[in-house]
Amino acid sequence: MSRIVQKYGGTSVGDPARIKNVAARIKAIRDQGHELVVVVSARAGVTNELIARAKEVCANPSEREMDQLLAVGEQETIALTAMALHGVGVEAVSYTGAQAGIFTDRVHTKAKIKTINAKPLEKDLKAGKVIIVAGFQGIDDDGHITTLGRGGSDLTAIALAGALKADKCEIYTDVDGVYTADPRVVKNARKLDEISYDEMLELASSGSKVMQSRSVEFAKKYNVVFEVRSSFNQNPGTIVKEEVAYMEKVVVRGVAVDKDQAKVTVSNIADRPGSAAKVFRALADASIVVDMIVQNVGHQGVASLTFTLPQGDTDKAVKVLKPVLADIGGEVAVLGNIAKLSVVGVGMKTHSGVAATLFQALAAAGVNIELISTSEIKISVVISLDRADEAARVAHKAFELDQA
Amino acid sequence: MSRIVQKYGGTSVGDPARIKNVAARIKAIRDQGHELVVVVSARAGVTNELIARAKEVCANPSEREMDQLLAVGEQETIALTAMALHGVGVEAVSYTGAQAGIFTDRVHTKAKIKTINAKPLEKDLKAGKVIIVAGFQGIDDDGHITTLGRGGSDLTAIALAGALKADKCEIYTDVDGVYTADPRVVKNARKLDEISYDEMLELASSGSKVMQSRSVEFAKKYNVVFEVRSSFNQNPGTIVKEEVAYMEKVVVRGVAVDKDQAKVTVSNIADRPGSAAKVFRALADASIVVDMIVQNVGHQGVASLTFTLPQGDTDKAVKVLKPVLADIGGEVAVLGNIAKLSVVGVGMKTHSGVAATLFQALAAAGVNIELISTSEIKISVVISLDRADEAARVAHKAFELDQA
Repeated sequence: MSRIVQKYGGTSVGDPARIKNVAARIKAIRDQGHELVVVVSARAGVTNELIARAKEVCANPSEREMDQLLAVGEQETIALTAMALHGVGVEAVSYTGAQAGIFTDRVHTKAKIKTINAKPLEKDLKAGKVIIVAGFQGIDDDGHITTLGRGGSDLTAIALAGALKADKCEIYTDVDGVYTADPRVVKNARKLDEISYDEMLELASSGSKVMQSRSVEFAKKYNVVFEVRSSFNQNPGTIVKEEVAYMEKVVVRGVAVDKDQAKVTVSNIADRPGSAAKVFRALADASIVVDMIVQNVGHQGVASLTFTLPQGDTDKAVKVLKPVLADIGGEVAVLGNIAKLSVVGVGMKTHSGVAATLFQALAAAGVNIELISTSEIKISVVISLDRADEAARVAHKAFELDQA
Repeated sequence: MSRIVQKYGGTSVGDPARIKNVAARIKAIRDQGHELVVVVSARAGVTNELIARAKEVCANPSEREMDQLLAVGEQETIALTAMALHGVGVEAVSYTGAQAGIFTDRVHTKAKIKTINAKPLEKDLKAGKVIIVAGFQGIDDDGHITTLGRGGSDLTAIALAGALKADKCEIYTDVDGVYTADPRVVKNARKLDEISYDEMLELASSGSKVMQSRSVEFAKKYNVVFEVRSSFNQNPGTIVKEEVAYMEKVVVRGVAVDKDQAKVTVSNIADRPGSAAKVFRALADASIVVDMIVQNVGHQGVASLTFTLPQGDTDKAVKVLKPVLADIGGEVAVLGNIAKLSVVGVGMKTHSGVAATLFQALAAAGVNIELISTSEIKISVVISLDRADEAARVAHKAFELDQA
C-alpha cells in the first residue's frame, strides 16, 4: 500500500463526462489498496468566466474579493469529483483549501503556502476515504480565502505530498510528460523518463509550458519526487527528482523555445557605477521579470545594456525607464519578433563544447544569434522569431535528442 | 444612524447589471450614514445548474457534497456584490457563511442555525465597511459546509438581524410586499402596510409564496421585525411584526390560495383508538406534511379520515399507507384538482361570523366546499381547482379587502 497524491488539471475535469473518467482512474488505483489524496483544479474556462463577470461589475476588482470569487471554481469540482466517486462506490470526501488546513500568507492572488495542518486529512485517510482537495486555494490566519496564483494547483499537490509524506505525487495534465522538445515543432521529439528539478526549472523558464517554476522550486526545496503524466491515457510520464549521478552522462536533456520575449536595449548611458543598478531596480519595482542581460563594455564614457523580458511588459518597461534615463542619460529601444532558444542538461556542466555545437549547428542553418547567455546547465540564444521552429529542429538533431 | 440588515434574492442579483443596481441601492443607504449588512442569494438559476451537473456525475449525490457544491452559488454573488460596491466607491467586504460565524447543526441540505459569532462582523461594521454575507449557508462544528434549505437566505438575514441587534431588517424580493390576495388573480388586491407574524405564517402555509414559514417562525421567536419589499423600485413594502392592539380591529387581512394540494381519503378503517395515529405516524415518518385533517364519526365499527397534502407527495403517501391499511383495514382514495382557499386575520379570533360570511359568499357564487378547517386566525376550505381564482375574488370582495 502506497500513499499517493494526484493532481488533475482543468482540462481533465472540464465537464461531467471527464470528471467521471477521473473518478474511474481514481477507483482503479483505490481498488489496489492505495491511500489517495486527489487535488483538482477548476474546470477549464470557469476562471475566465468568473473574471469576465468581475470586470462587468468593477473595472479594477479588489484582490481579496477576486480570491473569494475564484475559489468557487475548485469548490465546484471537488464536490462533483467526490460525487462521481460515490457514484462508482468509492468512499470520498471533498475539502476546500481552508478545510484542508492549507494556510498561506496574506498576499491575495499570489499567496505562498506557510503551513499545512494535515490532521483532518490523516484521519479521513485512515478511515479509508479518498480525499479530494481544491487546488490553487488556501486561507490566511484571519480566515480570508487566498489563491496561489498561476500553477497553484500543482503547488497544492506537491505541498500536500510533502506534508503527508506521500510515496508518490502524480501531476496529471493534457500532455504525456516532458519532451526533449515541443513535439508539435520537432516531430521526433522524445518523452523523457526522468529529469532533474534544475533541468525542469530551466525548461520552465525557457518557455516549456508543462509546469510553473514555483511548483518545481517547492518540490526541490522539500525534495518531493513527482511525475508529470496525462489523464487521457495510461502511459507513464516523466519523473522529476533530484539529479542522480547517471543523469549527468546525458549532456543535453532538451530544447525549449520561448516566443513570448522582446529585447530591450538601453544605449548611451553614463558608464559609471550604479547606472545598471538604477535600470534594473526600476524594472524590479515594477514587477517586470528580466531574463537575459548583456552589458557592453564602456567606451568613451558611455555604455549600453541589453536584456529580454516578456513581450507584454515592454510598454511598462519603457514607461518606468523614462525617469531613470532622464537621470543617467541614454535612450531605450525595443525589438520584438524574437525568440529565445535554450538547450538544457545537467551534463553540460562537466562537458565542454556544448555551446560550440549549438552555435555551429545554428550557423550551418544560417540562423543569426543576437544574444547569448549561459548558466551551469543551460545555454540560451536570442534569434529571429521566424527561424525559431527551424532552429529547435536543428538543435534537437545536433544533440541527437531523438535517440535515448 | 441605524444598523440595517438587507437581503436580496436570486432575481435581484441575477446578472452583473442587476448586481450593479443592488450596489447603487446599497450606496444610497450607506451615504445616509447607516451601518449595513447585506445578505445575498445565489443568482437565479445557478442552483439548478449545479444540481443538474451533480446529477450527471451521480444519480444520488450525498447531501454533504451537495452542500459543498451549492455553497459556491452565494460565494460568487457575495464577491461580485462587494466588487460592485468598490466600483462605486463604497468600502465593502464579503463573508461566506463560515466566515460570518454562522454555526449550524450537522443536518446537511436543511441545517438549523445554532449560534452566530458576530464578532468579526462587528469589527468590520465599526470600521465603516458594508458587509456582504452569503445567505443560505453555514458551517458545522467540524468545519463542514451546510445549507439551510429553502428560504435559507431569508433566514440568514433574520438571524443576523437578531444577532447584530439591527434596527431594521429588509427582505428584498421580486414582489412589492404582502398583498390582501394574489394581484395576478384579484385585480384590486391591496398591498398591506403591516402584518403580524402569525398572519404571515398562516398565509405562508396557505400558499402565499412570499416567504417560507421557517424564516417567519424564526423572526417571531427572536422578535425580529422585518420588511418585505421589492428591489426593483423604491416603494415601501410590508412590515412583519408582533401583533399590536390596533391590528386586531382588522377582521380579515388577506386571502390565499394553494393550488398545489391533493385530498386523500382513507375510508372504512377500524374505528378504534390508534387507527388515526398509525396513519399519520406512517406519513410523518415519510416526511409528508399533512395539512387539513377531518375525521368522520365512527359508524358501524368503521370510520374515515380525510386530509390534504402537497400534490407531489400523493404517490409516496399511497405507498407508505399500504402496510398500515393491511393492519387496520380500509382503502385509500386520492382526489386531485382541488385548491385550498384561506382567509387570514388576527381580528377574526374576537369576531364571530367570519366563517358564515365566507361560506355565504362562496355559496352565492355556486362554489362547493369539500372540506373545512379553522384555526384561531384562519379559515381554510377545500374547493374545486377550476373555481379557485373566482373564489379568491369573491372572498376578497366579501371581506372588503380592497378598502384600507
